[in-house]
Amino acid sequence: MALYVHKYGGTSVGTVERIEAVADKLKKFKDDGHDLVVVLSAMSGETNRLIGLAQQINKQPDPREMDVLVSTGEQVTIALLCMALARRGLPARSYTGAQVRITTDSMHGKARIQEIDTERMRADLDAGRIVVVAGFQGADATGNITTLGRGGSDTTGVALAAALKADECQIYTDVDGVYTTDPRVVDSARRLETITFEEMLEMASLGSKVLQIRSVEFAGKYKVPLRVLSSFTDGPGTLITTEEDNTVEKPVISGIAFNRDEAKLTIQGVPDVPGVASRILGPISAANIEVDMILQNISEDQKTDFTFSVHRNDFAKAEGILQQIMAELGARSVVGDNKIAKVSIVGVGMRSHAGVASKMFDALAKEGINIQMISTSEIKVSIVMAEKYLELAVRALHSAFDLDASDTVSEA
Amino acid sequence: MALYVHKYGGTSVGTVERIEAVADKLKKFKDDGHDLVVVLSAMSGETNRLIGLAQQINKQPDPREMDVLVSTGEQVTIALLCMALARRGLPARSYTGAQVRITTDSMHGKARIQEIDTERMRADLDAGRIVVVAGFQGADATGNITTLGRGGSDTTGVALAAALKADECQIYTDVDGVYTTDPRVVDSARRLETITFEEMLEMASLGSKVLQIRSVEFAGKYKVPLRVLSSFTDGPGTLITTEEDNTVEKPVISGIAFNRDEAKLTIQGVPDVPGVASRILGPISAANIEVDMILQNISEDQKTDFTFSVHRNDFAKAEGILQQIMAELGARSVVGDNKIAKVSIVGVGMRSHAGVASKMFDALAKEGINIQMISTSEIKVSIVMAEKYLELAVRALHSAFDLDASDTVSEA
Repeated sequence: MALYVHKYGGTSVGTVERIEAVADKLKKFKDDGHDLVVVLSAMSGETNRLIGLAQQINKQPDPREMDVLVSTGEQVTIALLCMALARRGLPARSYTGAQVRITTDSMHGKARIQEIDTERMRADLDAGRIVVVAGFQGADATGNITTLGRGGSDTTGVALAAALKADECQIYTDVDGVYTTDPRVVDSARRLETITFEEMLEMASLGSKVLQIRSVEFAGKYKVPLRVLSSFTDGPGTLITTEEDNTVEKPVISGIAFNRDEAKLTIQGVPDVPGVASRILGPISAANIEVDMILQNISEDQKTDFTFSVHRNDFAKAEGILQQIMAELGARSVVGDNKIAKVSIVGVGMRSHAGVASKMFDALAKEGINIQMISTSEIKVSIVMAEKYLELAVRALHSAFDLDASDTVSEA
Repeated sequence: MALYVHKYGGTSVGTVERIEAVADKLKKFKDDGHDLVVVLSAMSGETNRLIGLAQQINKQPDPREMDVLVSTGEQVTIALLCMALARRGLPARSYTGAQVRITTDSMHGKARIQEIDTERMRADLDAGRIVVVAGFQGADATGNITTLGRGGSDTTGVALAAALKADECQIYTDVDGVYTTDPRVVDSARRLETITFEEMLEMASLGSKVLQIRSVEFAGKYKVPLRVLSSFTDGPGTLITTEEDNTVEKPVISGIAFNRDEAKLTIQGVPDVPGVASRILGPISAANIEVDMILQNISEDQKTDFTFSVHRNDFAKAEGILQQIMAELGARSVVGDNKIAKVSIVGVGMRSHAGVASKMFDALAKEGINIQMISTSEIKVSIVMAEKYLELAVRALHSAFDLDASDTVSEA
């Protein structure tokens, strides 16, 4: 008998029929004698509907009131699931974030969990009840409703699992696990049995949007075993766990992540003096533009080229800012390209294996793909290239690092 | 400068445009220097939508979960109104019933308010904020969400006004006040400037569904001046107040209430022995049938006829029950009529005026209307007649008691 925390996303509770299916799934776990705490998102589309109402009234709604508004979405699903469980003879109780005392700071719209009081949930579990908690929300010390930001239900699930010392936190979603890369791009992409928290973080931040990044950080920090599974099909999913458990059997590279919507900007001929980077990025950050990769190469004649990448939607805005500050920086020109894409190979194994980067560059060269930017971390190598090569690059790397599914490779 | 509690119903906040209109109205009050606490219902249709979702999942949903579900409706409107107020430069804070600490008993779906903690609202009012509270809901002592039942937002408004010692509780609705009778039946029906709590109770229970009965009781008990106004047009509405304030100027009769959907049942030739009434009404009440009028006349040969009226929808069910218990009671027969209607004249003035009832019967006789049942209270005389005479009776009485609007009668 184990204690599981289950989390079901918006698609998994998107209709009455799907809520019924979740109740059926939970019944199986309960029949097997397990204790269950269930975290739910809002029905898919509901959060956007509520945001749409707010936008009609106020283009810049007060974040406090926004949280009061959108937190209703999860409150609806938790009540409906409890009704579905009751009809199956399973006693259950629903709780909003405030009720189950998920205490957060007061940063409305992106609050962080500070404390969870497990007393009430423990009492329900001891009485044989399934506890159903609204994801994505909490309350600050004075009782104001807060939300954790988009995807925050994953974080709620992990945080509850950590607080309750659950045996596993299971995130049910519309994919059946974490893949070596996007199966829509590479036919032979394989589901991973396990992946480390660090690898998952790199994969998630690079566009494999299976899990919210903060929930993975949280799970890693509190060593909560985290599993991604499909709510529509049966299967073991992918277990995200600490490095120590499985590096031995792991290949050098776990997966290929990529991101299409990138743009890069270079300000050329900037005087290479201390403080120039912050004088460039300061106005960019002040305009709420998120910067991804940043590159500065060695200088020539005390002049250097400074390059960074942003989301494609921010390209025009960022270019305008650079044009404005170019003169005051004494730079020569601003050039940009909004038709680029980023591909990364991720794997804890590369720490102890030399030559991973060169193997990557070699595979790309064989396909005639020109590399425009390179950036590395301990467990990741990212390159930027023209967007048109994206699929070709992903397939070439997937094959070069032996990630393709084959009958001779056992997955278990 | 006064403290007003405003309550806006579902139609008044039914669309984004109407929420904007409410915000405009509140701005006027605020500009005049008044303090405001605003109670809102859910957008019209929303509560029914949520109930519909629940019904798809569980025909008999747990009342606790039902309250978690339907309480989201008001939470949406309070947030949206605060956003609309903010856009008009008016600082405002929304609160759910639980947040503002409206403590109720644990009778989910029909909870009663036990206590209201005004500290938080006072602090907001002192800081110049408009306080916006979700109507219809509260939380029990252990924090479970409760609802007060349909129309409970009126009760929330009155309870807040009582707790805050507000100068007036203003209920904004889709009619512009309380009328001498239904204007759809009598063209010359007049809006009343004032009406007493007791008269309003009789009018409300007899089908003038302007206010929820419990809110009127509550207002009367705590002497909260209560005003019914239109949220769509300007005007003074109708002030509901204590009898002492206005009996002097009041006419004998304040209004004519009526109810169409009545049915009556008579069990004939019942032995006139102690306990027979409860032996008849016990099974009726056990079947959840609400009984309105009850009549028993003097007996003849130790036998009596026992008559009562029920809602037309319950007629067949009630008749079946009477048929079953007829033999065991030793009664002769059961007769019924489901084509009847009730008309009542209401007014505190009739206490001190003899001849009100006879004037009523006389007016009906002149129109050839046969009276089937009569029932009286201190401030009301009700009669039952064939339904087809309803409009005729209401018009005749409206005229007989000088309620018709005319240029020579001042309303103020």
